[in-house]
Amino acid sequence: MSKIKVAVIGCGAIAQRRHIPEYEANPHVELVAFADPVIERAQKYAEKHGALAFADYRELLKEVKVDAVSVCTPNALHAPVAIAAANAGAHVLVEKPMAATAEEGRAMIEAAQQNGVYLMVGHNQRLMPPHAKAKEILDSGRLGKVISFRTSFGHPGPERWSVDGKDSWFFRKDEAIMGAMGDLGVHKSDLIRYLLSDEVADVAGFVNTLHKEGTDVDDNATCLLRMKSGTIGTLVASWTYYKGEDNSTVLWCENGVMKVGTHPDDQVIVELRNGTVERYKVGAIATNEKQTSSGVIDTFVNSIVTQTPPSISGEEGLRSLEVILAAFESQATGKVISL
Amino acid sequence: MSKIKVAVIGCGAIAQRRHIPEYEANPHVELVAFADPVIERAQKYAEKHGALAFADYRELLKEVKVDAVSVCTPNALHAPVAIAAANAGAHVLVEKPMAATAEEGRAMIEAAQQNGVYLMVGHNQRLMPPHAKAKEILDSGRLGKVISFRTSFGHPGPERWSVDGKDSWFFRKDEAIMGAMGDLGVHKSDLIRYLLSDEVADVAGFVNTLHKEGTDVDDNATCLLRMKSGTIGTLVASWTYYKGEDNSTVLWCENGVMKVGTHPDDQVIVELRNGTVERYKVGAIATNEKQTSSGVIDTFVNSIVTQTPPSISGEEGLRSLEVILAAFESQATGKVISL
Amino acid sequence: MSKIKVAVIGCGAIAQRRHIPEYEANPHVELVAFADPVIERAQKYAEKHGALAFADYRELLKEVKVDAVSVCTPNALHAPVAIAAANAGAHVLVEKPMAATAEEGRAMIEAAQQNGVYLMVGHNQRLMPPHAKAKEILDSGRLGKVISFRTSFGHPGPERWSVDGKDSWFFRKDEAIMGAMGDLGVHKSDLIRYLLSDEVADVAGFVNTLHKEGTDVDDNATCLLRMKSGTIGTLVASWTYYKGEDNSTVLWCENGVMKVGTHPDDQVIVELRNGTVERYKVGAIATNEKQTSSGVIDTFVNSIVTQTPPSISGEEGLRSLEVILAAFESQATGKVISL
Amino acid sequence: MSKIKVAVIGCGAIAQRRHIPEYEANPHVELVAFADPVIERAQKYAEKHGALAFADYRELLKEVKVDAVSVCTPNALHAPVAIAAANAGAHVLVEKPMAATAEEGRAMIEAAQQNGVYLMVGHNQRLMPPHAKAKEILDSGRLGKVISFRTSFGHPGPERWSVDGKDSWFFRKDEAIMGAMGDLGVHKSDLIRYLLSDEVADVAGFVNTLHKEGTDVDDNATCLLRMKSGTIGTLVASWTYYKGEDNSTVLWCENGVMKVGTHPDDQVIVELRNGTVERYKVGAIATNEKQTSSGVIDTFVNSIVTQTPPSISGEEGLRSLEVILAAFESQATGKVISL
Amino acid sequence: MSKIKVAVIGCGAIAQRRHIPEYEANPHVELVAFADPVIERAQKYAEKHGALAFADYRELLKEVKVDAVSVCTPNALHAPVAIAAANAGAHVLVEKPMAATAEEGRAMIEAAQQNGVYLMVGHNQRLMPPHAKAKEILDSGRLGKVISFRTSFGHPGPERWSVDGKDSWFFRKDEAIMGAMGDLGVHKSDLIRYLLSDEVADVAGFVNTLHKEGTDVDDNATCLLRMKSGTIGTLVASWTYYKGEDNSTVLWCENGVMKVGTHPDDQVIVELRNGTVERYKVGAIATNEKQTSSGVIDTFVNSIVTQTPPSISGEEGLRSLEVILAAFESQATGKVISL
Amino acid sequence: MSKIKVAVIGCGAIAQRRHIPEYEANPHVELVAFADPVIERAQKYAEKHGALAFADYRELLKEVKVDAVSVCTPNALHAPVAIAAANAGAHVLVEKPMAATAEEGRAMIEAAQQNGVYLMVGHNQRLMPPHAKAKEILDSGRLGKVISFRTSFGHPGPERWSVDGKDSWFFRKDEAIMGAMGDLGVHKSDLIRYLLSDEVADVAGFVNTLHKEGTDVDDNATCLLRMKSGTIGTLVASWTYYKGEDNSTVLWCENGVMKVGTHPDDQVIVELRNGTVERYKVGAIATNEKQTSSGVIDTFVNSIVTQTPPSISGEEGLRSLEVILAAFESQATGKVISL
Repeated sequence: MSKIKVAVIGCGAIAQRRHIPEYEANPHVELVAFADPVIERAQKYAEKHGALAFADYRELLKEVKVDAVSVCTPNALHAPVAIAAANAGAHVLVEKPMAATAEEGRAMIEAAQQNGVYLMVGHNQRLMPPHAKAKEILDSGRLGKVISFRTSFGHPGPERWSVDGKDSWFFRKDEAIMGAMGDLGVHKSDLIRYLLSDEVADVAGFVNTLHKEGTDVDDNATCLLRMKSGTIGTLVASWTYYKGEDNSTVLWCENGVMKVGTHPDDQVIVELRNGTVERYKVGAIATNEKQTSSGVIDTFVNSIVTQTPPSISGEEGLRSLEVILAAFESQATGKVISL
Repeated sequence: MSKIKVAVIGCGAIAQRRHIPEYEANPHVELVAFADPVIERAQKYAEKHGALAFADYRELLKEVKVDAVSVCTPNALHAPVAIAAANAGAHVLVEKPMAATAEEGRAMIEAAQQNGVYLMVGHNQRLMPPHAKAKEILDSGRLGKVISFRTSFGHPGPERWSVDGKDSWFFRKDEAIMGAMGDLGVHKSDLIRYLLSDEVADVAGFVNTLHKEGTDVDDNATCLLRMKSGTIGTLVASWTYYKGEDNSTVLWCENGVMKVGTHPDDQVIVELRNGTVERYKVGAIATNEKQTSSGVIDTFVNSIVTQTPPSISGEEGLRSLEVILAAFESQATGKVISL
Repeated sequence: MSKIKVAVIGCGAIAQRRHIPEYEANPHVELVAFADPVIERAQKYAEKHGALAFADYRELLKEVKVDAVSVCTPNALHAPVAIAAANAGAHVLVEKPMAATAEEGRAMIEAAQQNGVYLMVGHNQRLMPPHAKAKEILDSGRLGKVISFRTSFGHPGPERWSVDGKDSWFFRKDEAIMGAMGDLGVHKSDLIRYLLSDEVADVAGFVNTLHKEGTDVDDNATCLLRMKSGTIGTLVASWTYYKGEDNSTVLWCENGVMKVGTHPDDQVIVELRNGTVERYKVGAIATNEKQTSSGVIDTFVNSIVTQTPPSISGEEGLRSLEVILAAFESQATGKVISL
Repeated sequence: MSKIKVAVIGCGAIAQRRHIPEYEANPHVELVAFADPVIERAQKYAEKHGALAFADYRELLKEVKVDAVSVCTPNALHAPVAIAAANAGAHVLVEKPMAATAEEGRAMIEAAQQNGVYLMVGHNQRLMPPHAKAKEILDSGRLGKVISFRTSFGHPGPERWSVDGKDSWFFRKDEAIMGAMGDLGVHKSDLIRYLLSDEVADVAGFVNTLHKEGTDVDDNATCLLRMKSGTIGTLVASWTYYKGEDNSTVLWCENGVMKVGTHPDDQVIVELRNGTVERYKVGAIATNEKQTSSGVIDTFVNSIVTQTPPSISGEEGLRSLEVILAAFESQATGKVISL
Repeated sequence: MSKIKVAVIGCGAIAQRRHIPEYEANPHVELVAFADPVIERAQKYAEKHGALAFADYRELLKEVKVDAVSVCTPNALHAPVAIAAANAGAHVLVEKPMAATAEEGRAMIEAAQQNGVYLMVGHNQRLMPPHAKAKEILDSGRLGKVISFRTSFGHPGPERWSVDGKDSWFFRKDEAIMGAMGDLGVHKSDLIRYLLSDEVADVAGFVNTLHKEGTDVDDNATCLLRMKSGTIGTLVASWTYYKGEDNSTVLWCENGVMKVGTHPDDQVIVELRNGTVERYKVGAIATNEKQTSSGVIDTFVNSIVTQTPPSISGEEGLRSLEVILAAFESQATGKVISL
Repeated sequence: MSKIKVAVIGCGAIAQRRHIPEYEANPHVELVAFADPVIERAQKYAEKHGALAFADYRELLKEVKVDAVSVCTPNALHAPVAIAAANAGAHVLVEKPMAATAEEGRAMIEAAQQNGVYLMVGHNQRLMPPHAKAKEILDSGRLGKVISFRTSFGHPGPERWSVDGKDSWFFRKDEAIMGAMGDLGVHKSDLIRYLLSDEVADVAGFVNTLHKEGTDVDDNATCLLRMKSGTIGTLVASWTYYKGEDNSTVLWCENGVMKVGTHPDDQVIVELRNGTVERYKVGAIATNEKQTSSGVIDTFVNSIVTQTPPSISGEEGLRSLEVILAAFESQATGKVISL
């Protein structure tokens, strides 16, 4: 089979650290074009791969016929770039949050359908081994129904991650649209939907800028969620966990509790009412590149290779997005928002 | 000094396990009267102490002149009993939540003031050594401002605690008024106000009966809190933590994080951004009766002996109560409630 | 339903510590008769239960109509007592090893069939939570095929267990027939057959009296086993593990290893080739009588109550017995024995 | 003293990883010649040392006068090469197993004697600090007599070790003669003879190819051993421990148990019946080259330098070989083999 | 053999907790007389053993013919009682410190010699399993010469130990002669002499009353010791280790270090320069009465039964006493004292 | 501000490992001259910094006008170099011990005063985070008064540290004046004065050469200290802790104990009588250059920049020196020395 021709649009941190290396490691892929308004960033990778570099992604899509596109731009551009790519006949992998509004999200889904291409959203948390194991255990039924939960994701902020540090687009509202909630919270709304095989019914949200200076995007976002089944829980995203970083989920169930990401060695711990304790060390081989990869690129490529629609589809991404949009609406209106 | 004559009204679990034994251990106290509609419960203690037993607390207050009263009745009776006791000229220690409504709470405060007696609320969490240590550390300023927090209190429900098991008044709404929120949540609203020296400004609440059968009081209560200073956090109370019991509080601050009650050995852990980690093992001498006592009785008695108004006053109890009442209102109205 | 009338024949250690207390705890059972040549032992329990006591079990079976019998005699009497009981129309639970020879075992099975009663053998190892969990994991298929194993059971000898100490029938060959192999080894031949769902094909055995004085029963028995599927392993039984007591089983499989009983806290540990480690703490509630019971009595009674043939049947017991008999034959002939 | 002139015959894994580096580190040695049918392997080392390279070891022995030879060929060549080297007047260090048959082994011993040269076998397990410590403790007598033991050596197979991977001679029966038994089992027969200062009397063996594909050498070998003193135990060698790698020995003795290689930190653990526990961390300085060396080369060179016959002599190697040969014979005949 | 008739003179804490129970547990002993100025204490034990009770030990020695005497009086009486007992023909076990002055000590030795009786001093530290193990290791030579050491013994003071609490003779200088130094320090001077098989040459001492009120005996004693061999070290005794209790000894040697009593689980730890670490858990069976006994009584009785002079002789006790007397002299004179 | 011109006199280990790198890392400093009798050492750094190199420090001080000087020479030269530097108008940072005699120390202080320059002594132990934390805790008063202490500093000797190995000036008495006491002991006399805010009143010392060969400087120094407040303790310095290296201080106080440097993870541990245990992990960020620096250079430079006299002044250094000089005097005279 000939290789899949891939373009990467947006060559910042997520492209540099996840998309590009993982495409490089995938034997089915040929990287053929890169776009970034800071043209040097695109050129650097273009040179390495004998590919073309563009400052303007529209130029790229016009001049190069690609099979697939990774959309790694600031959030505000996710929708226009993804739609343009789909219209150019390319499968699209878009970073999360998939769009700035639900309308944009729906337009992206429609564009993909009309052009007969796949649309996948980069919700990598589903692919992490601890979360896959947690899902497997919940599905086994031995914990019974989930009654309540808490899930949170917090770190010191994107300053250390972004290639632009404190000057990152992450802090500019017109490009980022949202802050910690869009960066981290949407991971958790997606995860909790996935783990519980349930949809969010009601959302209350406190979404504020509490500590970061010189920005008006949220650095702390705290929500209550009620699922269709009645299960209630809290979802927290924060950019001000300067110590005590956290990416954990605890689910209290009829027959016991499951703790994910609360222990440094055992990523999943199940404690049953009958006294049984199960401890799972998963994803341990951190030195193995395959393991530390996000899994997102391989999943996307595999979807194209096997002509199977991606399970983390545009529809999935949209529902996870709607949860956090509801939190913003709750903050703005002082009301609980029903989905 | 002659001993303080104390009556205990309501002789159920909290009276049997905390109030009566701690009064017995206090050298300044003489237990002179007990009341309980199940007269045998009152009689048992009356016999032991050469005291009088009553089925009706009004009878008790009429017939016995007491210096102080512990109100250990179901929640619905807290206000009428406390007011009657104050009117009878007795200092009043009332269990939490202090009342069923804010109006009741205010009436209790007024009754105490008019009769020149003290009114104290049994918020023992403030007196627990880990919380006292946490308060001391926060007040030292080395963690800087608290940015966000989570605090939770969950266990398998009052079935095991109550002397009536599953038939306890805890599950009858007319007597209990509220469930997990009144039993556990008000402890945490009081604690977070105390630790942060701050008042709650806004409350969103999801308060539901998710799993307990045959009752319409809440078994899971989840809130968002925004403090006057802007700090936001989550407060969770649950009666369905069948495993994974929890009474913990984590505070993310400008200079680091403080974890209270998250580790079996070290009740307070501070991790600073400069790399310092402080671990405190407090309240360790569990075999020492003084330590395992709630501290509430000694504090109340000491207040009377030294003629010093109690720091956990009616006003404090009322503010902590108002937080959880706001959560119920939020649940009922679908709105964020501002205090 | 009227209660099941049970007789216990042989009132030594296993009856006193397992059978009698577990029958007492089972609500479906009435203990109606006890037999022991040391009549005082039988009388003690008879008095407690308002039952009858006999020195001779034949007398018991003649005079009392019982629904079920536990055979807790020295090994040599297992077959004659069990057959007599079956002929008296009673369901039979016989301790392991079920008989002294395969012929006896077959006669027992036949007697039960002819009398329409159940015959169950007391192989309690199958019912221990760690072994049940190990079986569940093997059956899930994630370890793949078992390639090789070792299983062993060793302690300092029956001196501390038997009510007669060093004078126990365990050391008298005419009554015990075999030593460590019959006491411990047959547990492991049964366990390995159960875990692997496979039968033993070939046995080599070194069975000797190495250290116990004044006895000619074996105190150390070491075997090689080859299963029908080809899997090979070692089985060891010892009465001379004065320190380093052991009841463990390790299975090396295509996809990883499973360790059962090798760690003080985690009774089952699975290490997969992909780096995942699973640790199971099962059977932890040692203070809960239900958990520390053997489970054998409840299983036997449940079989009768539900009229379901017991899964640990006479046929199962016989096959497990034949393995250890083969080891003795191997010792005697210097040959590998095929079953 | 002039340096000892050494030739290395066979330049595969064991030569590259142990013999050549350890000769290089030994100040008494000059490497003067290398032989390997893959001449490039010999040439690489010859160039490095200003030595000569040969494809045919007979050529080497004819053209170069050497003081000593390391025989690192496939097993089938051990005897012919060693005998040729001895006849050429060189001291011989031969890898284990020393020969393919006992006859060969005896011929090697005779050749050495007739030529007045030393013959040493590369049984490095005796020189490992944990085994040396175990021997010292056993010899102290505080554990009393060894009653029974188990010793095992298992790893995922020689694929990762051999310089030829899956195409290694280890899997070709005509060159390897035996598989896991010759690679690992003979280490353990030598070790147990050494630790117990006792000889093997009887052997039963199950020696099979269970999982490796494309080979007919054994990948799992399991034996029963009875020593002259009566002590019995199991010896296991496996190439299919894909997880749960093991090189451990446990000895149950009159006064307690000794565990060697069962704990990641403490290589030797002694538990005595009087409650004393001794834990030894030996061989810990893994970064010190001297410690991580096998010790075999230094011992061999020291033997030559001091003109002292090597303690791991041809006779010792022969007895250890005869144990595993007996296991093969047992497998072939279905009989216990007496030595 | 007829039983040894023993009298206990002084029935305070050490008699009640060590001497009397250990005599009771020894099958060779008959307790025939007890003396104590608080006659009730003597009578209580006399009644229990059908023995005689005396207020005055002289009366006892006159009226009862005993084979052996334990001297458990305050320190000031050790010498007169021991001498009187020896003159009465009894073997003598005297508590430490053996006497108030060296002259007294010599007189005791002489009295024993003249009367042909044994004189043993209660230096039980030598008999503790960790110290016995430490001695064994030092004597093995693998640590080489001891270069320097520190040894210390500190606890919160004798208030909790003595049957008279704060009113104990331990705090009265005329009876106790010395405080922490006599109570604890002499244990360590004896231990270090024993472990090193060496004598003290020079002593400097700071011996003061720093914290205990209402007493003029020393509560903190700190010494420098230089041994005949040149080894130097510190010896510390304290009654003011209110936390951080300590009974430890560390010896830095040519080949490594030995730590005794520094770790809660492993009482003896050896770290050698070659990287080997040995950890010994000795004396672990704390529930076994034999183990938790001091060993002193059994040693004394065994000495009498076997007619072997006790190894912890009067001469040994005297030399250990002289070390601490030198510390007092150093404190008094401001000079280093040579022995 | 223009940069501070600094000269380093003496370019051995302490200059190479602490002074020069820390000056390089300080933005306020320009290294302008280096002196060392081994001129190559000076030249190497001079080249790197475009500075001047001298074999004779007098030449340096004459030819280069510097603002500050680090005195890193052998001990015997500390005073003459420091005085010359002060006379040349330079601020002086002198390594410890500041001088060979108290007279020299006083002359240095006088020279600094007369020339209006600062004199600081390199007592870096005060600046280590664990010691700073210990000081903070002691000053908080919660431990109450310190009653007694031990402090020690021991390692295998300066052979591994010095750039000249065994030929180091550390072993030559005319240059070093003193051995372990000057190298390590003076650190601890300074530390204990600092922690206790108290001065030493009396000193007894045993100071000897016990194990190092070919030198007559002390390799083991052991002291008793009595502080003005009465507190007594031991101070130990050793060059023969071949294993069991130690830099620890334990302080027994009225309300509990503080242990500094006794635990590998928690550098400061406080155990209070009320059961509270506090554990502090400080100075953990070993990879952060700032943290692993001594802090001495930054403190010295900051003193100059802010024109604030250094807190570790010549007077402080002198008092710490006098303590160890008293120990030498005690060793020489056999008397306790009062300061």
